[in-house]
Amino acid sequence: MPDALPHIVILGGGFGGLSATRALAHAAARITLVDRHNHHLFQPLLYQVATAGLSAPSIAAPLRQILRHQRNVTVLMDEVTGIDLVQRRVQLARERLDYDWLLVATGAAHAYFGHDDWAADAPGLKSLDDALAIRRCVLTAFERAEQEDDPARRQAWLDFVVVGGGATGVELAGTLAEIARHTLAGEFRRAQPRAANILLVEAGPRVLAAFDPALSAKAQRQLEHLGVQVRLGQAVTAVDDAGVTLGGQRVAARTVLWAAGVAASPLGRMLGTPLDRAGRVLVRPDLSLPDHPEVLVLGDLASVQQDGRPVPGVAPAAKQMGLHAGRLLAARLRGDTRAMPFRYRDAGSLATIGRMAAVAQFGRLRLSGLPAWWIWLGAHIWFLIGFRNRLVVMLDWAMAYWTQERHARIITGVDDEATHRH
Amino acid sequence: MPDALPHIVILGGGFGGLSATRALAHAAARITLVDRHNHHLFQPLLYQVATAGLSAPSIAAPLRQILRHQRNVTVLMDEVTGIDLVQRRVQLARERLDYDWLLVATGAAHAYFGHDDWAADAPGLKSLDDALAIRRCVLTAFERAEQEDDPARRQAWLDFVVVGGGATGVELAGTLAEIARHTLAGEFRRAQPRAANILLVEAGPRVLAAFDPALSAKAQRQLEHLGVQVRLGQAVTAVDDAGVTLGGQRVAARTVLWAAGVAASPLGRMLGTPLDRAGRVLVRPDLSLPDHPEVLVLGDLASVQQDGRPVPGVAPAAKQMGLHAGRLLAARLRGDTRAMPFRYRDAGSLATIGRMAAVAQFGRLRLSGLPAWWIWLGAHIWFLIGFRNRLVVMLDWAMAYWTQERHARIITGVDDEATHRH
Repeated sequence: MPDALPHIVILGGGFGGLSATRALAHAAARITLVDRHNHHLFQPLLYQVATAGLSAPSIAAPLRQILRHQRNVTVLMDEVTGIDLVQRRVQLARERLDYDWLLVATGAAHAYFGHDDWAADAPGLKSLDDALAIRRCVLTAFERAEQEDDPARRQAWLDFVVVGGGATGVELAGTLAEIARHTLAGEFRRAQPRAANILLVEAGPRVLAAFDPALSAKAQRQLEHLGVQVRLGQAVTAVDDAGVTLGGQRVAARTVLWAAGVAASPLGRMLGTPLDRAGRVLVRPDLSLPDHPEVLVLGDLASVQQDGRPVPGVAPAAKQMGLHAGRLLAARLRGDTRAMPFRYRDAGSLATIGRMAAVAQFGRLRLSGLPAWWIWLGAHIWFLIGFRNRLVVMLDWAMAYWTQERHARIITGVDDEATHRH
Repeated sequence: MPDALPHIVILGGGFGGLSATRALAHAAARITLVDRHNHHLFQPLLYQVATAGLSAPSIAAPLRQILRHQRNVTVLMDEVTGIDLVQRRVQLARERLDYDWLLVATGAAHAYFGHDDWAADAPGLKSLDDALAIRRCVLTAFERAEQEDDPARRQAWLDFVVVGGGATGVELAGTLAEIARHTLAGEFRRAQPRAANILLVEAGPRVLAAFDPALSAKAQRQLEHLGVQVRLGQAVTAVDDAGVTLGGQRVAARTVLWAAGVAASPLGRMLGTPLDRAGRVLVRPDLSLPDHPEVLVLGDLASVQQDGRPVPGVAPAAKQMGLHAGRLLAARLRGDTRAMPFRYRDAGSLATIGRMAAVAQFGRLRLSGLPAWWIWLGAHIWFLIGFRNRLVVMLDWAMAYWTQERHARIITGVDDEATHRH
């Protein structure tokens, strides 16, 4: 590819960056896609890896493999260390890239509201490594309970607190309850996995705040039916290796999972342009930076208002922004300078709670329970990248459904005495 | 289960320990099975996890799940820190076990012939964590090559040395050649994966020394056909982060994999009884310790002679010893004190080299190429524990066969700047 072609650098191979890359398949440009990881991750199913229902490779595919036939793309596994908007340069850990156009789509990470020291005791869930660490924590807790003689200390290993009542928190809590009640029941001789307490804590007035209040109430009832205790309107004020403090009250638990805060990727700050409170980059209606039409920010990192409300940080929004950014750049490369504002179309919301329990909201349509769960299942399998992954995930879920077994219950990784407390 | 029942402690949930446990399903005894990991590992397919063909959970199953219906067994995930043969006690990291009968089946680890400092630069393959570390190393090497401008340094990232020409070394080298030539070809824009050099080094006079010399020669030809260079009769005398020294000659390679040495588990030394040169425990013909008929040692940790030759350290031998030990204990518990010497039946040997290439040896029958490969495939799928695993492995292999793709090409784990050199 001649160097004379304009160079598009895309940072981040998530839903936003990958959609943009694909939308540029026929553009007369050199594209460089940079990601810290070698894979695109199907993040909506990450909680399934964390709870041992799926193996890591089932929800991830190498970016190079996805893009092998798109000859105008070079994929680099590298880390961004600096962005120079004036010189139009991105500094990576291992090389430097000069760009004509820049797309920044590095997403969000979990955040501890200024309490980064909680991270060691309350792991969050954003990457495959996070998911494998949570899997290790949860499975190891039951193993420790089996070896603990003292009843109070044994119970502490069976007490789980999930902080945050959004989709991830609800999914984690519901699945943990199923693991304790069904998957592990009968496999231990001294401890009783059924004695596990799963507490879901939400600072706001209801779970799944992005949904209709009636669906939030239904989701809460479904969670309670699975055995999850839900505590609303109470913020966590302390986390340590023995539990959490909640509305002034101490709750013992050896395992605390963090699904509460989301902070935009630190790359937002590197741009040096105005951010919103969550650290997201304020962009113009077409997703470009105010003084830099050649730089677009998209996905969870972009702060976009529409009809007076923020566009939500969900996978469909990131995909739509990626598609928009790709089309906008393709138009610009053709010499088309018309204004092209981004418009988010809400395709509906889905959240799963457990086996045969979910909530769904499409426009005015509201569903819960089994019908919502079938829609959730179909949608998630459909959008999983790669035929093989779809097939294996379907197989895993079919087996899990009939046997209540979870096939990925394998503890790997360094025994984490040093990193976590188990 | 009343405490009055005799207590059998089994250390190690590999092929030996698990077979023994199962053989004791109807014994009037309390059984405690201890393993450092929560899973039984199908070790013969570990190289497939290392080379990204299979996901970790596909070749492992939780010990508790396998044994959930065997009510006389308690499974503990713990580490052995001491054995007291006189007091009949095993000290674990988290508790102490008093036994009436002890089975020690903790297997072997890889060994560096007194050069433990080589471990950081030449990872070996014994556990799932080892396999995931090797996968990370190998996949990352190609990523680094893509970002290296200097031709010599780029080539060094594409140079791989596999030390050891036994089954594991042959499998790793053959699969690496396939990955470079087929799987990754076409996915890189700057580096050429096909330019990778795979060098297999063996100190002895031929690869697969356990096989008939004619089959060793065929295996070597099949390796060379896949693009592997085979160097025989040369021992590695130095390993560092830039390559190896081999017969006084320097070979550059950023990635060195160790498949050469096997040393018995350190638990052999804890017993304080005579060991052979490889650290294996010398046992009586019935696998018991010379002065302790209540202690049996089995699998790769046991040094057993039969007809003047050592019983090989392979999975079928470990399984047979486990079955023998279980039956012997069951007889003893019934009051049967007859001598029961162990007898190894050689069921044949199989080794795979790559796609449609393998060697097989059953008594006088010698096979190589496609027929041997089909037998290898069938045998390995058949012996994989768990219906689901068999199904998923078959699916993965069928897809890999047709597409030359490897689905588990996901780099996870801490970026290992600190632990390895990539």
